[in-house]
Amino acid sequence: MGKTKMGKTKTTEIERLSQDELKKILKDTRQKLALQQQLIKEQKLPVVVLIEGWSAAGKGTLISYLIRDLDPRFFQVTPTMPPTSEELRRPFLCRHAERIPEAGKFVFFDSGWLEETVFDAVDGKLDEMSLAHRLQEINVFERQLTDNGYLVLKIFVDVTAEDQAARIEKLRKDKDTAWRVNERDLDELKHREKYAEIFNHCIRETNTDKAPWHVVDGSQKGLIELQVCGLLVDGIETAIARNQQPVEIPQNQFPLKSNPRLADVDLNCSVTREEYEQRLKEAQKKLKKLHNKLYRRGIPVIIAYEGWDAAGKGGNIKRMTGALDARGFTVHPISAPDTYEKNRFFLWRFWKRLPKTGHIAIFDRTWYGRVMVERLEGFCSENDWKRAYNEINEFEKMLTDWGAIVIKFWIHIDKDTQLARFTERQNTPEKQWKITDEDWRNREKWDVYEQAVDEMIAKTGTEYAPWHIIPSNDKLYARLQTIEIVINAIESALAK
Amino acid sequence: MGKTKMGKTKTTEIERLSQDELKKILKDTRQKLALQQQLIKEQKLPVVVLIEGWSAAGKGTLISYLIRDLDPRFFQVTPTMPPTSEELRRPFLCRHAERIPEAGKFVFFDSGWLEETVFDAVDGKLDEMSLAHRLQEINVFERQLTDNGYLVLKIFVDVTAEDQAARIEKLRKDKDTAWRVNERDLDELKHREKYAEIFNHCIRETNTDKAPWHVVDGSQKGLIELQVCGLLVDGIETAIARNQQPVEIPQNQFPLKSNPRLADVDLNCSVTREEYEQRLKEAQKKLKKLHNKLYRRGIPVIIAYEGWDAAGKGGNIKRMTGALDARGFTVHPISAPDTYEKNRFFLWRFWKRLPKTGHIAIFDRTWYGRVMVERLEGFCSENDWKRAYNEINEFEKMLTDWGAIVIKFWIHIDKDTQLARFTERQNTPEKQWKITDEDWRNREKWDVYEQAVDEMIAKTGTEYAPWHIIPSNDKLYARLQTIEIVINAIESALAK
Repeated sequence: MGKTKMGKTKTTEIERLSQDELKKILKDTRQKLALQQQLIKEQKLPVVVLIEGWSAAGKGTLISYLIRDLDPRFFQVTPTMPPTSEELRRPFLCRHAERIPEAGKFVFFDSGWLEETVFDAVDGKLDEMSLAHRLQEINVFERQLTDNGYLVLKIFVDVTAEDQAARIEKLRKDKDTAWRVNERDLDELKHREKYAEIFNHCIRETNTDKAPWHVVDGSQKGLIELQVCGLLVDGIETAIARNQQPVEIPQNQFPLKSNPRLADVDLNCSVTREEYEQRLKEAQKKLKKLHNKLYRRGIPVIIAYEGWDAAGKGGNIKRMTGALDARGFTVHPISAPDTYEKNRFFLWRFWKRLPKTGHIAIFDRTWYGRVMVERLEGFCSENDWKRAYNEINEFEKMLTDWGAIVIKFWIHIDKDTQLARFTERQNTPEKQWKITDEDWRNREKWDVYEQAVDEMIAKTGTEYAPWHIIPSNDKLYARLQTIEIVINAIESALAK
Repeated sequence: MGKTKMGKTKTTEIERLSQDELKKILKDTRQKLALQQQLIKEQKLPVVVLIEGWSAAGKGTLISYLIRDLDPRFFQVTPTMPPTSEELRRPFLCRHAERIPEAGKFVFFDSGWLEETVFDAVDGKLDEMSLAHRLQEINVFERQLTDNGYLVLKIFVDVTAEDQAARIEKLRKDKDTAWRVNERDLDELKHREKYAEIFNHCIRETNTDKAPWHVVDGSQKGLIELQVCGLLVDGIETAIARNQQPVEIPQNQFPLKSNPRLADVDLNCSVTREEYEQRLKEAQKKLKKLHNKLYRRGIPVIIAYEGWDAAGKGGNIKRMTGALDARGFTVHPISAPDTYEKNRFFLWRFWKRLPKTGHIAIFDRTWYGRVMVERLEGFCSENDWKRAYNEINEFEKMLTDWGAIVIKFWIHIDKDTQLARFTERQNTPEKQWKITDEDWRNREKWDVYEQAVDEMIAKTGTEYAPWHIIPSNDKLYARLQTIEIVINAIESALAK
């Protein structure tokens, strides 16, 4: 590795070409890329192109070049600014993850999670442990994308210190471009060795098989365009071939808690109306106070509700939120994904709904749809749902590492109770809207659902994000259970 | 109007009731509200509840009360924070408009556009003219919502100065709630008369037939809940009845430019390839420079492309963006709305795609779909599309008043040219994906489309956001035309 450049770039072969030869190859490659658009659309391949590099290395120019022959309907360029105060109140990867493309489209990230991480490290916002942890999260994020069919192409545009200095100087001299040079650019120049060291470290640590880095030499115009065009063309071909194969299902590596099987849960629990009213009132008062404390401490809470139809999720959530200041929580009802959601990685719509620090997000049905309805109705492949246990465990690990309290409820009833409630809904005019043909159809599949739920709870009941099976034949009992579990979880988090 | 309260509240009748009578009425009203949820869902009524009022007047508590019996799947509470620096780079109403509910749901705004306006006026950010202008924009926004089937219920929670002071004091004393009291709250107390004057003025100026204000007395617990519940119940009934009737179509009140009918446009314009290449290169160079200037001056640009299928929109846009720094523009391909978009006011998805100051947004098909495809395919009612000309003129007026340059292109070809291009696409393997059965079906309707386009251009070709009909039988000619029009428009905006 040279002293000034980031690393050895692979231009040697190409460098020997004459200008004319170069032009011809470039033209061919560009044509190939333009033609691949149709392929990408047909194969529904989503393409993430991350362009990182030294400031003023020509990232913007490179992107402009890459997109010139692409149909504007199929790509987006997304510049990465320093995070806003709102964005800082969500997990680091959130704002990047929100911008991934849908199937059949490109997104070009004009720098992204690498740059943000390096800047944070240089600025002393990340100690060694936090940096290592963040790089690991990046690897998980990129691997989840590639496992879910994304092409993730990562380019680092390298220029020498002299070159960078000259480019920045040129920008500053022209009054129309002078505004582009900011403090950070000058800081990069001044402390170039330090930046180089951290860039190198981060690139090394996130250089994975599925999403490797390509360091390209930005100093010779023409060469870099050719290289990156070629990388894109190859990457697309490789990804399409790869997506024909099932992805390996990893072994579990998270600490699991044991839970009873649904069939073994005692459903004969109940409380009297008097006890219920008294305990609920007390619990709501307590929760309200805790909500204020959470807010002050900036701790986010994520409460996930799953359960049988008519188990009483809605009423249960209502008692939970009855205690809360409406400004500090959101209930997210989750039904079948809309088209724009279906066209992205299945966790994407949940990334978009994460709470801010100090806020509570309640999910009425959740990402567990992947291993229940999507599995059983065939909305995803077997490989997809089998992989999802691990993806979900990773997702929830990221949330708890961020500082969130994650609580998951399975609201449980038996088959007879469901029938009684369905029948009552059917016979009560004000409740008829709550029952649909689909509910009856799902009921017929009770046994396969039960098996899937048992598997789900066994495989995702982690210590950091445990499942709670809540007997709800008596709804009043269930409401007390859930609110008291939430209170306990918050109290122990606050005690830390 | 009293000296300390905002205005006379309508509680006199209710105030005479005994506590027991009050409780009974309240219970009945709440039950009615809970039952109305089904109605709202069936009728697909979207409900905006704007809760404004003095700080510490109990807005949050009121909202918590209102939602207690509502199914959390059907409402959202959205607190309004001071605008972020990102939000300040979009039109004032943007961040509020983005949060309107979809059909069949409630959104409770915990203060919103009134408070933001009043604070801006108090802080001296709005002079008399700008304030008047903003209030007018609010009226247009609310009227567009109600015309499009929304219930807009506006509540102002009034408390006396003494009461407000006491409430703030109570919050400050408790360490769990002290953080809730901010500078603004104290400022309101200190300059209460000034705030009252501006609140009063704004309420008066935005007190319209379709979205009137309801000032309610927040000082007596129980009464306010009853009043607001009652207002909601009445409002929902009224809105559902109102939505059975067509909305009046307003006369045009915007300055129109005259444009030729499509049939009268000369399509025999062309350039040589040499002239094209030379002029395009010059134009792109110029546009690139202007883009930098726009950025520095913070002027947003909105370029709307409409035109016949195969007229050459895509290639035209590509030449426009070929000149631009990819970080400063976005191309928005617009196709049929997704479900979550269809469930909201038709301009909503364009509000969401407005550029930031200094950025360029290019729309490949636009909001004009309302008066073309939606009109001709019956995707909206006759009343809807007839009203849309005015709604669009208002929308674009708001954009240009904000400072945007709005340029609209109709890319025009004749029927024979379209046929030739369709046939070529069909016969060229790499281009087949560009042509669909729908294109052929649309072609059969050429004449009715032409009539609709003539009407559209006549009714929305305003002076502030003019239409340009671009002959595109020769695509090269068309590309030069559009880029040169954009350059001229930017140059004259910069000269102002």
